[in-house]
Amino acid sequence: MSVYLHDIPLPEAQARFRQAIQAAGFWRVLGTESIPLDENSLGRVTAEPIWARISSPHYHASAMDGFAVRAITTNGALPSKPITLEIGPEAEYVDTGDPLPDWANSVIPIENVESLDEPCNITAEIRNPASIRIRSSVAPWSHVRPSGEDIVATQLVLPAGHILRPVDLGAIAAAGHQEIRVTRKPKVAILPTGTELVPIGSQLKAGDILEYNSLVIAAQIKSMGGESTRYLITKDDFDLICEKVQEAAQDHDLILLNAGSSAGAEDFSAKVVEKLGQLIVHGVAVRPGHPVILGTIDRGSLTSDEMIHRPGSIVPIIGVPGYPVSAALTIDIFVEPLIAYWLGRRRNELPTEMATLTRKIVSPPGDDDFVRVAMGKVGDKLLAAPLSRGAGVITSLVQADGLALIPRGTQGLDAGEPVKVHLYRSRAEIEKTIFCIGSHDLTLDLLSQFLAEQDRRLASANVGSQGGLIALRRGEAHLAGSHLLNPETGEYNISYIRQYMPNIPVKVVALVGRDQGLMVKPGNPKGLKSLRDLTRSNVQFVNRQRGAGTRVLLDYHLKLMTIAPERIVGYSQEEYTHLGVAAAIASGRADCGLGIAAAAQALNLEFIPLFQERYDLVIPREFAEGDLLAPLFELLAEGRFREAVSQLPGYDVSVMGTVILEE
Amino acid sequence: MSVYLHDIPLPEAQARFRQAIQAAGFWRVLGTESIPLDENSLGRVTAEPIWARISSPHYHASAMDGFAVRAITTNGALPSKPITLEIGPEAEYVDTGDPLPDWANSVIPIENVESLDEPCNITAEIRNPASIRIRSSVAPWSHVRPSGEDIVATQLVLPAGHILRPVDLGAIAAAGHQEIRVTRKPKVAILPTGTELVPIGSQLKAGDILEYNSLVIAAQIKSMGGESTRYLITKDDFDLICEKVQEAAQDHDLILLNAGSSAGAEDFSAKVVEKLGQLIVHGVAVRPGHPVILGTIDRGSLTSDEMIHRPGSIVPIIGVPGYPVSAALTIDIFVEPLIAYWLGRRRNELPTEMATLTRKIVSPPGDDDFVRVAMGKVGDKLLAAPLSRGAGVITSLVQADGLALIPRGTQGLDAGEPVKVHLYRSRAEIEKTIFCIGSHDLTLDLLSQFLAEQDRRLASANVGSQGGLIALRRGEAHLAGSHLLNPETGEYNISYIRQYMPNIPVKVVALVGRDQGLMVKPGNPKGLKSLRDLTRSNVQFVNRQRGAGTRVLLDYHLKLMTIAPERIVGYSQEEYTHLGVAAAIASGRADCGLGIAAAAQALNLEFIPLFQERYDLVIPREFAEGDLLAPLFELLAEGRFREAVSQLPGYDVSVMGTVILEE
Repeated sequence: MSVYLHDIPLPEAQARFRQAIQAAGFWRVLGTESIPLDENSLGRVTAEPIWARISSPHYHASAMDGFAVRAITTNGALPSKPITLEIGPEAEYVDTGDPLPDWANSVIPIENVESLDEPCNITAEIRNPASIRIRSSVAPWSHVRPSGEDIVATQLVLPAGHILRPVDLGAIAAAGHQEIRVTRKPKVAILPTGTELVPIGSQLKAGDILEYNSLVIAAQIKSMGGESTRYLITKDDFDLICEKVQEAAQDHDLILLNAGSSAGAEDFSAKVVEKLGQLIVHGVAVRPGHPVILGTIDRGSLTSDEMIHRPGSIVPIIGVPGYPVSAALTIDIFVEPLIAYWLGRRRNELPTEMATLTRKIVSPPGDDDFVRVAMGKVGDKLLAAPLSRGAGVITSLVQADGLALIPRGTQGLDAGEPVKVHLYRSRAEIEKTIFCIGSHDLTLDLLSQFLAEQDRRLASANVGSQGGLIALRRGEAHLAGSHLLNPETGEYNISYIRQYMPNIPVKVVALVGRDQGLMVKPGNPKGLKSLRDLTRSNVQFVNRQRGAGTRVLLDYHLKLMTIAPERIVGYSQEEYTHLGVAAAIASGRADCGLGIAAAAQALNLEFIPLFQERYDLVIPREFAEGDLLAPLFELLAEGRFREAVSQLPGYDVSVMGTVILEE
Repeated sequence: MSVYLHDIPLPEAQARFRQAIQAAGFWRVLGTESIPLDENSLGRVTAEPIWARISSPHYHASAMDGFAVRAITTNGALPSKPITLEIGPEAEYVDTGDPLPDWANSVIPIENVESLDEPCNITAEIRNPASIRIRSSVAPWSHVRPSGEDIVATQLVLPAGHILRPVDLGAIAAAGHQEIRVTRKPKVAILPTGTELVPIGSQLKAGDILEYNSLVIAAQIKSMGGESTRYLITKDDFDLICEKVQEAAQDHDLILLNAGSSAGAEDFSAKVVEKLGQLIVHGVAVRPGHPVILGTIDRGSLTSDEMIHRPGSIVPIIGVPGYPVSAALTIDIFVEPLIAYWLGRRRNELPTEMATLTRKIVSPPGDDDFVRVAMGKVGDKLLAAPLSRGAGVITSLVQADGLALIPRGTQGLDAGEPVKVHLYRSRAEIEKTIFCIGSHDLTLDLLSQFLAEQDRRLASANVGSQGGLIALRRGEAHLAGSHLLNPETGEYNISYIRQYMPNIPVKVVALVGRDQGLMVKPGNPKGLKSLRDLTRSNVQFVNRQRGAGTRVLLDYHLKLMTIAPERIVGYSQEEYTHLGVAAAIASGRADCGLGIAAAAQALNLEFIPLFQERYDLVIPREFAEGDLLAPLFELLAEGRFREAVSQLPGYDVSVMGTVILEE
């Protein structure tokens, strides 16, 4: 039997949902209201075209400080043949903005006028001479803002469906309005359900899940122009959920039920919708987020007052999947278009760009697959590096610069292939991103902080030292962190650079010296002292991935000590970062792993130092010389960053900034 | 003598202002505060890096509904050789999100498990069998979200200086926070000054100026992340203004004095700043907006309480020019960087693109000149069409799609030259813009409304019928409105299309038939009946510009009637639109003009119909066949738009949509 209802394609799901809402008469602006014209109007949507009530200026206004004249009386004035105009009948002083006298049709700026009382030009202080002298003629309507120059009464100032910006408010005021009719904000009920959920800030025990989806969704709704009610958590209880949904249906335009949209034993959302209304879609062929429910709730016992306010018989309801990434994307995909229609505005569409994929993506051919990507411009290439695909990994959305779409009907894309990306950040921001790939070190987090102050973003992908050098060869990063020991020479990195990126001139700069050692639980319960202890059958090891410098270091020393890797329990269990290894030990998944002191300290582990090594930054010359990386070299040269790193345990900052190689 | 203080270059003005604020210790984050983590945190700026307090998940969580097992006990299971696991010691049912039992390290999804009680797969409802049967092995940690998969305690979640988005709130909550430290919002005082100012909504008399700059500025400050106080209007009174400025200095971080920043007799801003503090800059070489004042106010008698809150001795003050366009740009140029520093965030930088200028721009070589432009993509070209340059024309900012910069040191740019434009709208929006140029007709406003509902924007520039055809030849518009009569044949447009755009295949579609006639004041005080009356010396005429279809029509009939244009008073006085002509008559600037009935009606003028003519849309084939214009053809075909136009006076809609020519 199938556990989920059949997933239907995304466009079909959207169409069915829309049809149901349309059939009930709800696929339109929900309502309008008149609001005072002030800064709170910002972001609201005009409900009707705004026509000008008055002209602006509403009279012929002087555009300069000067003298209003009849243009015809100035004809013939020449430097050698001045004309004198009498104040009163022929000329009248006006300030900028003053109305022209009825008889005047032009203004002579004060600096072009001579006073007869003084030999020099007239000044602002002497505005009331008996007459003035001019030495050139003026055309009619010179230095005049004629009535209607900006706005002519009755003209269209703004169309309906316009999102109000600061300057729009000025134009509306200039057109004679002090109120505006805007569309009503849709009211959205957010109902978190789940016995395992606890509010943010709770003391946690195993199995508790922090309920923060309602927070993210409320913020999404707000940024889309709606307003929301966040309900308290409801337990997984069919009757309780029904009750809450009915309550919410009374005074909301949309209900979001999160989660319980799957088909597990305690997933009640579909049944609730079936009982209280109509289940339209259960399961959409989209990743992440396929267990979506789309439906409508029949509004029960409405008073006639409520009917006036919301003259409809149904409320759309969406069963939002529980994983945070799925939840956020479901809101973008299904709720944003609805809010846009209800507000009468255009949809929020992210700009798209074609980018080059840095890694292969395998994708289920039946699904529209949305992949979070980090982006950077390296040389001429706009790159998209896939981030974690786990639907539970909200940090992947935080780090994402864009969302790549692998459309239904494809099985995925290879590294190097073009992919369409919806951008979360502007091109300008992406172009200020330093793309760092390779080995992970905790000082990169600190570096990221310092670079942010210099208007640079550091995006780092952890693929191990070797992976970083390969990425540099393919032109897919600006720099790589690397600590690859050459077992023959004891040298770091250089031989690997020759091997993996031949013919690419590079600059190699030392970042830090650091201790590598065993991370173990506090008190070192298994009494581990050296790599030899890893072969004990009661010791569970956690390893770094192939190509990581730490893995190379381990393998080098295992070989020196003639220890066969197969003898180490957990040798094939891989983590991608030092913190990942530390977390595995802290959580009890492993007894020990090889890593750096700072990672051990971060998670309160004990650290048994074994080796010292150098961690370098490898930078192709073309980037080493560019503007983008200049702030990085400044940071390495000055003291503040060095000082901050020296606070971390197990680091030697004496090498920082030393140029190891420069080609 | 010079009326303005010497204008200094923009970068120098910015640097001097910054230095003064820096010297007082104010070019930094103003302060921080702790706020609860809810949807109101949206848009706030992190005051410090956010480090994870807890891991997420904080325990090993099942990623599926299924059975928790030790992976090692599943080794050897094959389709032909199932393994049976006893519930309790060897397998335990878990829902998605449940913690794994201590002894387990993997999850078998429920759909891969057979119940021994039934022949088929186990279902969600039957979760408590005595034992389960499996036919394939699982690797350790399969279908498990290990502790720290998303966030490892102590890791960096977000850097300082980050503007909070919805997903960030989720990540912060997941990392164990329920409050966040953000930077304090800068408090800005907005002081409108001017005896001629009246609040919006006032009944107006000549000389009154609606005060809406404070509204626009308050909305600008809000959208930048600050908060503002809008003071009531202060008259042009030196002492009163001083008093208000001192009051504002007590509890604000920045004072904006608008206007009085020029050097006229009643421009007190500079004197106020000189009296209460330090005048740093008066006059910046930037257009529009050069009479800017930058300075600081000394904070007088502060209580010690206030000193704790704002440990500084000065408050920056900006004298903002009075013209609305100058005011808005001054805020963008001088206030936004300050607010960005005070909030500790990156500056709001508009994306830039190079575009092709459609018209020559003459620019003062000493100034940085900001020119509002309408933009559209025509064929492969991104075009920038300069809008009105009047600093009083706020509608030019409303209509602007971008701001082109003609940098100091150039005298302007020719048509066809590339120009750097800061974009107000996204490329996607600009690419949905139908660029319509040529003759003006009031139905274009209506068309714009209808197209907005079809996700298209109509940008129309009025350059007259001939100008439109020339623009089409140069590839600078998608379509042109034209009503050019061939005096020889009585045909409309075709012969002009052959002349002005040879070898470009076009589609010509009739939009409307319409009356042209004389617009006159209500009651027709001068008793005008025909063109013959225009030669009377007491009749002031207002004309349309050369190349306008209405001008061609006029000249044709004047020739037929052998009337010499020189005999018409005002023949050389030109307006660019029908409404412009109507406004000139309504305001008394002229007695009559030739135009359309709808324009006359809009401004309550009388209309004396003289001729009938056809108004066509001329569309190069390449655009007529594209997606962009498809909604336009649909509107011409269906009834709603036709119905709306038929409500306007003087239009014949029977021809609407008739194809006159298709090549």
